[in-house]
This record gives sequence, C-alpha cells and structure tokens, in this order.
Amino acid sequence: MSKGVTPRSQDYARWYTDVVQKAELADYGPVKGTMVIRPYGYAIWEALQAAFNRRFKATGHQNAYFPLLIPKSYFSREAAHVKGFAKEVAVVTHYRLINDPDGDGLIVDPEARLEEELIIRPTSETVVWSMYKQWINSYRDLPIKINQWANIVRWEMRTRLFLRTSEFLWQEGHTAHATAAEADEETRQMIEVYREVVEEEMALPVIVGRKTDSERFPGAVETWSIEAMMGDRRALQSGTSHNLGQNFAKAFDVTFRTEDNREELVWAPSWGVSTRLIGAMVMAHGDDKGLRLPPRLAPIQVVVVPIFKDDTRSAVLSAAGKLVTDIAHQGVRVELDDRDNVSPGFKFNHWEMKGVPVRIELGPKDIAEGKAVLVRRDGDGKEDRALQGVAAGLPALLDDIQRSLFRQAEEFRAEHTHVPENWEAFKALMAAGGFARCGWDGDPQTEAAIKADTKATIRCIPLDEDPTGLTCIRTGKPARHEVIFARAY
Amino acid sequence: MSKGVTPRSQDYARWYTDVVQKAELADYGPVKGTMVIRPYGYAIWEALQAAFNRRFKATGHQNAYFPLLIPKSYFSREAAHVKGFAKEVAVVTHYRLINDPDGDGLIVDPEARLEEELIIRPTSETVVWSMYKQWINSYRDLPIKINQWANIVRWEMRTRLFLRTSEFLWQEGHTAHATAAEADEETRQMIEVYREVVEEEMALPVIVGRKTDSERFPGAVETWSIEAMMGDRRALQSGTSHNLGQNFAKAFDVTFRTEDNREELVWAPSWGVSTRLIGAMVMAHGDDKGLRLPPRLAPIQVVVVPIFKDDTRSAVLSAAGKLVTDIAHQGVRVELDDRDNVSPGFKFNHWEMKGVPVRIELGPKDIAEGKAVLVRRDGDGKEDRALQGVAAGLPALLDDIQRSLFRQAEEFRAEHTHVPENWEAFKALMAAGGFARCGWDGDPQTEAAIKADTKATIRCIPLDEDPTGLTCIRTGKPARHEVIFARAY
Repeated sequence: MSKGVTPRSQDYARWYTDVVQKAELADYGPVKGTMVIRPYGYAIWEALQAAFNRRFKATGHQNAYFPLLIPKSYFSREAAHVKGFAKEVAVVTHYRLINDPDGDGLIVDPEARLEEELIIRPTSETVVWSMYKQWINSYRDLPIKINQWANIVRWEMRTRLFLRTSEFLWQEGHTAHATAAEADEETRQMIEVYREVVEEEMALPVIVGRKTDSERFPGAVETWSIEAMMGDRRALQSGTSHNLGQNFAKAFDVTFRTEDNREELVWAPSWGVSTRLIGAMVMAHGDDKGLRLPPRLAPIQVVVVPIFKDDTRSAVLSAAGKLVTDIAHQGVRVELDDRDNVSPGFKFNHWEMKGVPVRIELGPKDIAEGKAVLVRRDGDGKEDRALQGVAAGLPALLDDIQRSLFRQAEEFRAEHTHVPENWEAFKALMAAGGFARCGWDGDPQTEAAIKADTKATIRCIPLDEDPTGLTCIRTGKPARHEVIFARAY
Repeated sequence: MSKGVTPRSQDYARWYTDVVQKAELADYGPVKGTMVIRPYGYAIWEALQAAFNRRFKATGHQNAYFPLLIPKSYFSREAAHVKGFAKEVAVVTHYRLINDPDGDGLIVDPEARLEEELIIRPTSETVVWSMYKQWINSYRDLPIKINQWANIVRWEMRTRLFLRTSEFLWQEGHTAHATAAEADEETRQMIEVYREVVEEEMALPVIVGRKTDSERFPGAVETWSIEAMMGDRRALQSGTSHNLGQNFAKAFDVTFRTEDNREELVWAPSWGVSTRLIGAMVMAHGDDKGLRLPPRLAPIQVVVVPIFKDDTRSAVLSAAGKLVTDIAHQGVRVELDDRDNVSPGFKFNHWEMKGVPVRIELGPKDIAEGKAVLVRRDGDGKEDRALQGVAAGLPALLDDIQRSLFRQAEEFRAEHTHVPENWEAFKALMAAGGFARCGWDGDPQTEAAIKADTKATIRCIPLDEDPTGLTCIRTGKPARHEVIFARAY
C-alpha cells in the first residue's frame, strides 16, 4: 500500500490495475479471469446497489431471483440471441466428484453425467421468459416489472478487473408489457435512470443514445446505452437498456389474453448495469496518487489524521476523537486513523490511494490555534479551517467535491470531443484518443470499414442527434445519423 | 390464488409447497431442483438481509465477494472437508458451445475442455483461504472479518422449495484470527447474532447448542447451531457457526508473524444462514389459510380493503386513501387493495394467504359510524376501531402481533418438548413428533443406533445442558451430555 502506482502517462492499463489492487478494491481469484471484490470495493458496489434500488422501486420494479443454471436447449430458441451469446459460456456436464481410485485426489464421476448440459447464465432472458410463460395469462397479469441482482459468467480469455472478468456481478431488469408503446417507454425510462445514477452519484457525465444494428444486444430490436469517457479518452459503455420487441415472447411462446379477448404476444425490455461501473469510476476520476471517489458513493467520506509525538499523543487523540464525533453527527461517514505504527505521511498516501474525498489533519499546533488543516482529494490544495466550524461545513463541502468531480470529467470530455472536418482529421483524433461527433451514412459496411481502419466503433446515435446537412465522415454521402465514434473498452 | 391449500393435517409437505407457491414466495425453475424466488419471497429475503447486515456491521464485519468457480484440486486439500462436501457438486468441464454440425441446435465444443475442472462453490472456505494466504502476513493483518452474500450449488436429488434446492442463496462469514480464544469468541458471538435475528425478527424461538461429532460441519472442530421446531414438530437447523480451528490455515498454508516474531497458523471460524430461513418461517407460523408473517419482516404489514358498490365507490375509496396515507405516515408498510374485478371475500383470502399481519376493512356503514374493522392475522378475531385512532395504534399493534407469534411458537414447542422417562416413551415421542430432552452416553454408536431405530438425530447439546445425574436414554449408562433429539428436516 505504501508504494505508489505506475503513472498513467507511462502505462494506463498498468496504472489501472495497480490502483484497483493497491486501493484494495479487488484482486484476481485463483481461476483465471475471476475476481475477488474486497470489502472496500464491495462497499462501493453496495452504495451503487442502494442508489439503483431506490430508483428501481420508485419506477415500480421489484427484485426477485432466477436460477443460475439454464438448460442448454434454451439458448437455441431465440436465433439472434444464440449467435451473440451462446458461445463463450461455462458448461456444467457432471454433478459428482469421487475419490480417485488411482490416487488421493478427486475425479469427476463419469457415471454422474447430466442428460442435458447446463449453462451458467451469461444473461437471464431465456430462464426469465420460461417463467413468464407460466405467470402470464391475461392482460391483468401485465405489466411484470422484475429486476434481479446476480452473478454472471461469460468466458473471457483476456481479462481485466471490473472491466472484463469471466464472472461479474450485475443487475438485470426484465419486464413484460401488453403493448409496444409501453415496452418502448420502459426501455427509455430505464436508460434515463442509469444516466441519473451515473451522473448524480458517480459524478460521471454520459452520452445517452441508441446503438447501431451491429452493436445491438443479441435478440434486441433496439438498444440504448450510456457512454462515458475514461481518463485515456476511450469510451466505456456503462449501462444498456434493450427493447427486445416480441422476440423472447415468440421464442418461449408467451402470450396473453387481451381485454377484448384476443391472444397476443407479450412485449419485452431488458436492462442492466454491472460491477464494470466501479472500473469506470476508477478510470474517469483516478489520478497518479490513486482513486478519487465521488462523496456520494465513498465508503469513507472524511478521514481524520491526528499528528502527534509521544508527549502530545493523548491531547491530540482526544481532540481528534471529539472532532470525529462531531463529524459523524453531521451524517458524514468518517474514519479516525489513529494508528501508531505508521507515519502521517504514510497515512496521507494511504487515504489518497483509497480516494477518500476529504482529509483533515490535526496536530498540537493546530489545536492550540483552534484550527484544522483540510485537504480535498479533488485537488484544490490545503487550507486551514476554524476547528469549531469544520464539522458543520462538511456536508456542503462534500457536495461541492461531488460537483467538482463531475465538472472535471465534463471538461475533460469536452476537451477531447471534436467534430472532425474530414477523414484525415477523424483518423488523427481516433489515434490520439477522444470522441468524434460526426455524420454516418447509415451503412453497416461503412461502419465496419471505419472500425477496420481505426478500431473506433459507433458508441451511439445520441438522443439529441441532428443529421441535417451532415455528410458521412468516411464516404461523403449524406449522413443518415449524427453519431459518436470512439475507441472503446 | 383464490383456491385454498391442502390442510396441514392432511398432508404437511403438500400444504407447505402449496403455501409457498400460492403465496407467490417461490416456484420451481426449469432445471430440476432449482428455485425461482418471486418478488414477495425475495422482499422477505431482503428484509432478513438487512436485519443480518445491521448486526454483522455492528460486530465489525464487512461484506465482500469471492468467485463462484473453484478449482477442483482445492477440495482435496482439507481431508474432512472433502469427505463431507466434495461429492454432490456441479462440475464445469467446458467453456464454449458451437452450432451442431448435424442439426440446428447447440453442442458443447469438444475442443473447449478445461485443463482442470471447476466446481461451482458448495461453500467457500477453500477459495477464501486461498486469498487469505495472500492477504495475511503479520499479526497486524488480523483479524479479518468478512462476510459474503452469495449463491451456492449442492446437487440434490430430492428437493423442496427453500428447504433443499440445488441452488440456494445464503451468507457465509469467514474470519481469520490470531488466537484460538478469539476464534472461539467469534464462533459463539455469531450463533448469538443468529439467535437474536431469528427470535426477534422471525418471531421464532430457537435452541442454541453444539453439534455432536457426527453432525459437525466437515472440517470443523466445533459446530454451533440454532434449532427451531416446525409446525409438524420436526426440527429445522436454522443457522450454524463453526470453529474450524487451524484446519483450513493448514490446508492452505496460511501463517502470520506474531508480535514477537514467531510464525503461526491462523485460526478460522465460519458461519452461515440461508434462504432456508424463509421455509422455517412458513412452517413455524403458517396455518391452513396460508402464511402468517412476523410484522418486522412482512413486505406488507397492513392491507386496507375498501368495501363498496358502484354508488359508494368514490366515497369509500376517498376515505380508504386517506387512511392509507395516515398509516404510511406512521412508518407502516401499507397497501390499498382497490381492485374492482374481485370481491372483498376474494381479497380477504388473498391477503390471508400472503400472511399480511393486519387487514383493515372499510365500508360505507363503517365510515358513517366513524370506525373501521380490524382483523389480526395471528388469529384474535375481528374488532371495530374508531377510524380516527386506527393509524396511530398500528405500530403498537404490530409489535403485539410480533410478540404473539413468538409466544404461539414458544407454547407450541413447549407443548411438544418432553423429557422421556424411558426408551419406550422416547420412541413414542419420536414417532408422534416433538423434541426429546434427555441424557446421552456420548457414544457415537449409541447416537447411530437411535437414529437407525427412530430416524431421530441429536439436534444439539444445548448451551444450558446439565447432565448431572442423567442416564443415557438408550443404554442407561451415565449421560455425558444432556441433548435434544428430534427428527429433522
């Protein structure tokens, strides 16, 4: 913990992994590509879960839980879904181990082979819709608005903590509606909920938009996403909301009787965010000293570091203890670092690595002068504050830091978002890193060619697109859409 | 939902499954032995999670998350653990599906075979201790007090919703300590936390005690459990806390450097409760009308059922709406059932099945007389209440119902707990159902013989045992322990 991290400018990927591990957010597990989320990282995930749950409930959703294991045959039912998902999955083939007759280890019991292999869910549409078939008969049973918090496995060869691991945690909403209009409204409402949480709680500005055909979720008729810019100017898809039309209802034969007694297929959206959001927070706000956490999600918002020698120890710890009590009374999550065995400098580095928004230093001289030294992690330097008012001022200060982190991310994104004038400028921008806002002729072949040349993809067709008068950045043909291009995680 | 359930007296097992399904707590999933926890059941689980999390945090624990998939070889490391667990597990052998060259389905890619098979966690000691090895170096790193909420798979052939399913949800605490005394203290503290939650929140009295050698967790040196009596007089183990000694530290070579610079093995407790608790709540409190939920965990504590005809509809709904607002202001979870398409009688049955603690009926005549009809689900009949004071009285009433459910369960248990005078009386009691409190000579063979004869097991050696002067119920030898025998789930 005491050692620093690789500077971002030197190796961004290495910086990222260093921060995640040194801030004790997560570690690699024993199986390649798996992740252990450590208490500090998990506390952030719990704060995010609470922020989402409040809004899911306010929009009429309920949590539930569907099984981890799905029959293999289910994945063949929805054709597009098969293509996109059913490849890199964990397959359960047996259900028993026995003692190795030739040694002292364990072997898989060859007699305990499953008749049909089971898949660890890579996403749950298939199992959810197999249950909806049982629960839905009439229009009175609709809408169903269910969310689940669950673990997901998608086999990955190249993994990175939080961003891409074989197992990750997420929430997946699966709702069932009587009309196409209602399904469309739900799909849009949930991407807006995602935007709100990511912007207001994570302090991370996002672009809301639709995916092109080639980037859509397998089985969806429309996919909305929120896209954020990371510190290396690449895009990170931070949440998606899909309108699945009637595809899954068809695949699982889910119909309902309408009020006027007709039989109709049910309409389906699904939407999800994952522990990837923690990776986004690290990359968007972090610096060479480590994490910078938005106050609303920080497990510890303020740390008090008492500075003492043997002879001042008890007086300083007593004043620090009183300050911590006052701060806690303000509803602020505060921690006192009263460790004896490390230096103040070590502690400063430690809490900067952990991204705690505010540090308060308190020494004998400060106490004598009735003040404390206050250090903001968002980078506005040190300042003295009257000890008496410091606790009461913290809620407003934390709000200010929350806004400041958002503003910094927004300015960074603005600085690296351009409207390239021509194909050469576009290529230069994609090579340097950043978002290009420009015209696209709507042809998937153009999109593929751009990706082949620059590795950039269309992140989205933004909600506020205006293609009027634009031409395609690559072909010069009239633009069908104004889009955001970027290289992405 | 409208139809009743099989009476308990007719077929207890069928009654149980009927209630779980008709109250919409859970359903069977598509794979044999898997369970879908529906929103109403999941809301109870969330309330339980919150109750446990509060106490876990208060006792210094932090939540984290460890991987689902564990290398097969890990299960060979701790010998006793292998014997007890490593048999009926789900084994992942492959990581890819491909299109069937001979058809249009999907087959497992024979090329994508894992070098080492992976096991879906049946419990996480092995993976947790493999990480603790990385995190623990010195006495300064101890204690580690981590809990995780996770899904678990143990292959089961005969399953029952909540009580025994191949996949279930649970929490598992895994802590690491420098001394045997601290590990023992942790083990005891957590069984006491379990007792408190189950008794205070679930309104279910339990017996706290230690397991005999034969009933201990595989790998543990001591297992504590809480045992509750169900409505059919059988016992249900509702939570366990294990002192694992240094067994897992040995198996995973986890040592720490002491303050005086010696190298020692770390001490380990682990403890868990699962969604089984929801099954316990159904069986301990339910009746032939359905669930009876303890108010503290009930997703809906009070339901208001307006009773109206076309001409009184708007006046009654207006008064009911006002009442619901008043009740919500008391911090009570309330629901208004204003459905038009079903009768009041249907609604009464519906909410009784769902176990809502209090129902308030409100019709035009009640409103004219300034009263409401209040019905307690714990069985104390109907009574009129002045409409004005009804909301304010509800928190106290809910507390009273919470206590009344506990008292009913306690009386039921007392009625069916006996001190059998001799072996014949013991056998009769076990055949009829109930708890026997009696002496046991401490011999595992005696224990096994009693089980063979009566299917009863030693549920625990209760915390307050007093074997002085007792003789063994089976052999007549001096008793080594006073124990609780019962047939169990």
